[in-house]
Amino acid sequence: MAKVVKFNEISGVDSLHIVEEDVRDPGAGEVRVAVKTAGLNRAEYLYLHGQYFMPPQLPSLIGVEGAGVIEKVGPGVEGISVGDEVCITPNMQPDAHGVIGELAVVPANAIVPKPANVSWEEAASIWMSYLTAYGGLVEFGGLREGAGQTVVISAASSSVGRPAIQIAKAHGATVIATSRSSAKRDGIMDAGPDHLIATGEEDFVARVQEITGGKGFDIAFDPVSGDFLTTLSEAAGLEATIVEYGALAMAETPFPLFPAIGKGLKVCGFHLVWNLLDFPDRTARATSHISEHLAKGVYNPVVDRVFPLEDVQGAYRYMEQGEQLGKIVVKVAD
Amino acid sequence: MAKVVKFNEISGVDSLHIVEEDVRDPGAGEVRVAVKTAGLNRAEYLYLHGQYFMPPQLPSLIGVEGAGVIEKVGPGVEGISVGDEVCITPNMQPDAHGVIGELAVVPANAIVPKPANVSWEEAASIWMSYLTAYGGLVEFGGLREGAGQTVVISAASSSVGRPAIQIAKAHGATVIATSRSSAKRDGIMDAGPDHLIATGEEDFVARVQEITGGKGFDIAFDPVSGDFLTTLSEAAGLEATIVEYGALAMAETPFPLFPAIGKGLKVCGFHLVWNLLDFPDRTARATSHISEHLAKGVYNPVVDRVFPLEDVQGAYRYMEQGEQLGKIVVKVAD
Repeated sequence: MAKVVKFNEISGVDSLHIVEEDVRDPGAGEVRVAVKTAGLNRAEYLYLHGQYFMPPQLPSLIGVEGAGVIEKVGPGVEGISVGDEVCITPNMQPDAHGVIGELAVVPANAIVPKPANVSWEEAASIWMSYLTAYGGLVEFGGLREGAGQTVVISAASSSVGRPAIQIAKAHGATVIATSRSSAKRDGIMDAGPDHLIATGEEDFVARVQEITGGKGFDIAFDPVSGDFLTTLSEAAGLEATIVEYGALAMAETPFPLFPAIGKGLKVCGFHLVWNLLDFPDRTARATSHISEHLAKGVYNPVVDRVFPLEDVQGAYRYMEQGEQLGKIVVKVAD
Repeated sequence: MAKVVKFNEISGVDSLHIVEEDVRDPGAGEVRVAVKTAGLNRAEYLYLHGQYFMPPQLPSLIGVEGAGVIEKVGPGVEGISVGDEVCITPNMQPDAHGVIGELAVVPANAIVPKPANVSWEEAASIWMSYLTAYGGLVEFGGLREGAGQTVVISAASSSVGRPAIQIAKAHGATVIATSRSSAKRDGIMDAGPDHLIATGEEDFVARVQEITGGKGFDIAFDPVSGDFLTTLSEAAGLEATIVEYGALAMAETPFPLFPAIGKGLKVCGFHLVWNLLDFPDRTARATSHISEHLAKGVYNPVVDRVFPLEDVQGAYRYMEQGEQLGKIVVKVAD
């Protein structure tokens, strides 16, 4: 018997509860993990509220990112052994494989070795955000090592902001982070951007032109959308790429047709699952790059707050407030 | 002294008139062409009305595409000789180098040899449209030889439609052409698309799904924009590219954010000058590909109607009516 978090109805955070049950054996191509920590993601919050693109099959497990120790290995799985310390990446169906619980059965291809120099809390705080940032910037945005690109990371205090800044810096880019206000300046600057523009307080386009000597930026990685896409198009350089991966503005997004034609802009949509995790070659490149930089300490996730398993509701309610800078983690076991 | 078409004020087609004047010698890197034919383009119509992005310096010449015989070669020009039969591609500033007149001074890099098997009228009807189609489809759209892509060519009765269909077919693509009505069906089908969807009479998305077995298209090359971008996004396949190169809808263009994120779509703007002609390597690839296929007779431009030089106003007025299918040509000399 193991404690596992489940929900039986679409009624938000209140529906989450802990059950004690037998967790099934891993099937072919699966492993079972004794979970130590799980990282929370906004997608699960939408999922709980029936607002995610994919409705959960009820009763549903929850959580797609975590860390722990391999407890059992299913048939046909190679290169993973009982006792391995691992991270669980979000490469799975969330209702069938939720990881918030003492035991979780997940696909073997969601498993990545845990870097020795990160804590268990940090190990649950890496993959959703670093994979998203890597996929959006490198696979879709055209970020290249040593190309001297200027990269805009908007809404840089979001969970993907820090990884995006670090990945762009590791490729030698000049990084312009943005935030609505300067309230989160210290937390954002800690990730190492070259510039921070408070879009609610400064003229974004003028600042980008000043920083780039009038050339405009090469890549923007943006979860805001709405009218900010038009603002981005005005600050974009010739043949710049703008990668849209969110809808934080919660508003209509006009396509900036004339700037796009005038500059040959590329505006891409990007989603972690369909544009990265569904492609084994891209996922392998991303996990290898990220693991290497984590091991060197160049990439370092930030944990905002840790909640005990018993207070899983509290953890999601804290996320609801949106005040965190870094990952919210549920500690399942020592 | 040579007859040359000029305009002295921004007042539309009425301002065009023929003057007899000495045409200057070609400068360094320039040639002078005894023009035989000139092809008309919609950009000039906007230019005459002060609606083009770049206002003309008055008095202005007009016309950026033509064919004729090299009459004088400026200093430093290699590989071009007096007597060469050539095409003039739109690789120039229109006010300084307009080609509608008996003599035209143009940059040597705007010169391409005239394929032997095309008439003088056809030779003036190739480059603006074939270069636009090649640049948009191959350099920006990701069209690849033998990749088995499905390509949507919208507003296929426009001047770029026929070249786009032929270029996509030459790369082995399945081509879906669109037109608002089926009125121009015969003219469009003559270019060789696999399918023609009359968007005002049929359900575009359903037809594309049917044709592609539910996969959606790989590339769309679209001068319509407006709400049609959203329609395109619904019929697009995973990681499809939509190249926008016009604003025929003359309407706001919403960015289809959720389909874009859900499918990893790329929406690019494309402009012949800034995204092709400004890049010598891209221009060289494009002219070489097009010349080769013209010489083989695989690409064959269509001339709609030929006007004498004296009726240059009539030629632009005919363009105003928008009834042509193919190029409107001004014949300057036999």
